[in-house]
Formats: sequence, C-alpha cells, structure tokens
Amino acid sequence: MRKVFTSELSHIGEDLTAMSKQVHTAITTASQALLRSDLTLAQQVIAADDAIDAAQTELDERCVMVLARQQPVAFDLRLVVTALRMSGSLERMGDLARHIAQTARRRAPAAAFPEEARELFTDFAAASERVATRLIEVLTTHDLELALSLEADDDALDELHRRALSMTQAAQWSGTAHHTVDVTLLARFYERFGDHAVTISQRMQYLLTGSSDAPAAADVAGMTTAP
Amino acid sequence: MRKVFTSELSHIGEDLTAMSKQVHTAITTASQALLRSDLTLAQQVIAADDAIDAAQTELDERCVMVLARQQPVAFDLRLVVTALRMSGSLERMGDLARHIAQTARRRAPAAAFPEEARELFTDFAAASERVATRLIEVLTTHDLELALSLEADDDALDELHRRALSMTQAAQWSGTAHHTVDVTLLARFYERFGDHAVTISQRMQYLLTGSSDAPAAADVAGMTTAP
Repeated sequence: MRKVFTSELSHIGEDLTAMSKQVHTAITTASQALLRSDLTLAQQVIAADDAIDAAQTELDERCVMVLARQQPVAFDLRLVVTALRMSGSLERMGDLARHIAQTARRRAPAAAFPEEARELFTDFAAASERVATRLIEVLTTHDLELALSLEADDDALDELHRRALSMTQAAQWSGTAHHTVDVTLLARFYERFGDHAVTISQRMQYLLTGSSDAPAAADVAGMTTAP
Repeated sequence: MRKVFTSELSHIGEDLTAMSKQVHTAITTASQALLRSDLTLAQQVIAADDAIDAAQTELDERCVMVLARQQPVAFDLRLVVTALRMSGSLERMGDLARHIAQTARRRAPAAAFPEEARELFTDFAAASERVATRLIEVLTTHDLELALSLEADDDALDELHRRALSMTQAAQWSGTAHHTVDVTLLARFYERFGDHAVTISQRMQYLLTGSSDAPAAADVAGMTTAP
C-alpha cells in the first residue's frame, strides 16, 4: 500500500510540473502574439487553455482520491493539500495568459499598444518568461534558493506594472483611449501572473521548511500542532 | 468521535458564513467610499482586510486539522475540500473590495471617476451588494434556487463591466487618463468579485447535487468513482 501511495504522490508532483510547462508555453506564446499582433498565435493560446483547465481538474481529482483512499497524515497530507492549492494558481496563470492573448486578438492586425509602449511589453514578455521558467525549476528541483530568486524576478513585473500605469498618465502619452484601457489591463494581467507564481513558490518553501512569512502559505500551519 | 467530527464540520460551515459577512461589509463599505470619495470609509475597508485574511488562515487550519485527525471520507471529505477552496475565493473577494477602497483613497478627496460615470458606479455598488447578500444566503441556507439566482445577479456585474469599457471608449468620454485607468480597473475588480461569488455558488451546487456544468466545481468529481 505504501508503495502505491508513494507513486501517487510522485504522480501529483509530475502533474504540477507538467502544468507549469503548459503555463510557460501559454505566457511566452501570448507575449509573442501581443508583440507581433499575431492572430494565429493568440488563437493557439486561447485554444490551449482548455487543456490547462483539464489538467487542473485531473490533478485535483487525483488529490481528492489520495485523501479518500490513503488518508495521508503529517508531511504527506500537507503535500496533497498544497498541491490542491497550487493547481488552482497554475490554472489562474493560464487564464491570465489567455486574457493577454484575447487582448491581442481583439486588436489584431493592429497592435494593442502604441509604439512607445513596445519596449515596455518586450520587458513584460522577458520578465514573465523568467518567472515561468523559474517556476518550472522550483517545482522540479524543490530548490529553496530558486524559490527565493523567483520572488526577485516577480519584483521586475511589479516594477513594469508601475511603469505601465505612469506611462499612460504622462503628458506625452500618445495612446488612444483604447490603448489606455488595453495597456492598463495587460499590465495587470502580467502583474497577477507573477503574484500567482510567488504564491506557489511560497507554498513550496513552506512545505519544505515549515516556515514562511507568507500568509498565503499559512494554510498548513495547523499541521504543526496536529497530534 | 463522530459527535466531535460533526461539530467540527458545522464549525467550518459557520466560519464560511462569517467570512461571507465580512466580505459583504467590505464591498458595501468600499462602494460607499468610492461613491462619496470618503477617505475614512476607504481606510476602514483596507484595515479590515487583515481580519478577512486571518479568518481564511484560521478556517484553512481547521480544515487541514480535520483532514489529519478525522480522516473524513465520501461527502464529509468533499465538504472539507470544498470549504478549503471557498475560503480562498472569499479571501480574494476581500482583496478586491480592498483594491476598490485603495483606488478611492488614492484619489480622495477627488472622485476616482468623472460625473458621467456616477450612475455606472451606483449600479456597480447595488449589483455587487446583491451578489454579496445572496452569497451569505447561499452559504447559510444551502438553497439551490438561491445559488442559481446568484448567477443571474452576477450577469448584471458582467453587463456593467461591458458598459464601463465602452463608456471609456466613447467619443463623448470626458474623463482624464487617470479616470480611464481607474474606471477600467474598478470595473474589473467588481467583475472579478462577482466571478468569485459564482465559483463559490457553483461549488456549493456541486457539493449538494454532485453535478454541475461548472469546470470550477469538477475538482471533486473523482470522489464519485472512489471506492
């Protein structure tokens, strides 16, 4: 029985890594669709989001099944509950990539932003790709150093978010009202994408160390006092 | 043992209802802060969000403790897993109310929107209050009819979201770039607030009926095939 259980748990870990790879493809393709105003790439991201949603459903079913059949305790229970939460964040990251692709699609073949914002979105593309890559590494290696560096990568997204908002408020902003709305929402999508990656990373840190300053990870704190 | 367990489960239900009441206060106060450009009300919402976060942490600890100590199966397991997910959505609804309050605070004593958008935000306030009230009722009564009517209430928020976006794009829009950004984000915060309420309501429906068209609720589908 224990052997079956260990294999179920490692399966859950593999499912999470697989989802993070799908999310990586989604965000990098969405950024390309946005930067090139490429309808085909945008459609690709939108269509692929169903597969991410299906992966979440499957992973969650697996987790609930493990809870029902194996009744894990201590670390194993924390691991399953953490996986349940991580899958929700990964699914949301997929949604945000889809929102970016939908914005690109809505304006194509025109750009969703004026030329002066091209560098900004090139930077958003690079920073979000770094975060997505790091997230795969964190979920694969369970390396705490990597988890910490992911938070630094997310700082770049927060900084770009601020840059976007002040750009649209500047006197020299040449964008239309359409552009202002699109740039505002796109910046928020990228920022939230990073937030979710940080939440996942903090949950991983908490799972591994049993401590975290992150309230998001405090959900398993009760375990430390469980009998 | 079974008696202790039942009391733990009803405690989880009470915690969820209590959180939904906190969220109701948060959104109605945030809307008032926004409509009146009232700094004091805005601060109140922002300060109260910590209590919502703490309520989530506490509820989640209780759920994990129940999983560890009681090892529930079948309906009871689904209930605990569903509660874990609902608390996350309620916490996000609190965050969104806080975002609305923060926008009001940032512009106070000026309004975050031009006068022509006053009716829009009065409607947003009324629609989000209806959704929040309905959510308390759904969590208290477990009434499926109410859960369905919550989705109709959410349609009103989606419609207002569309109205907000087209308003900022209209030729006669008199708002500044600040206003455009604020109205865009505020509309999105209200829309997401409704989305989370619908997700909670769908999870409740799924828990009670074991069927739902909502992919969000499919996370416990595995239970039906569990031994």
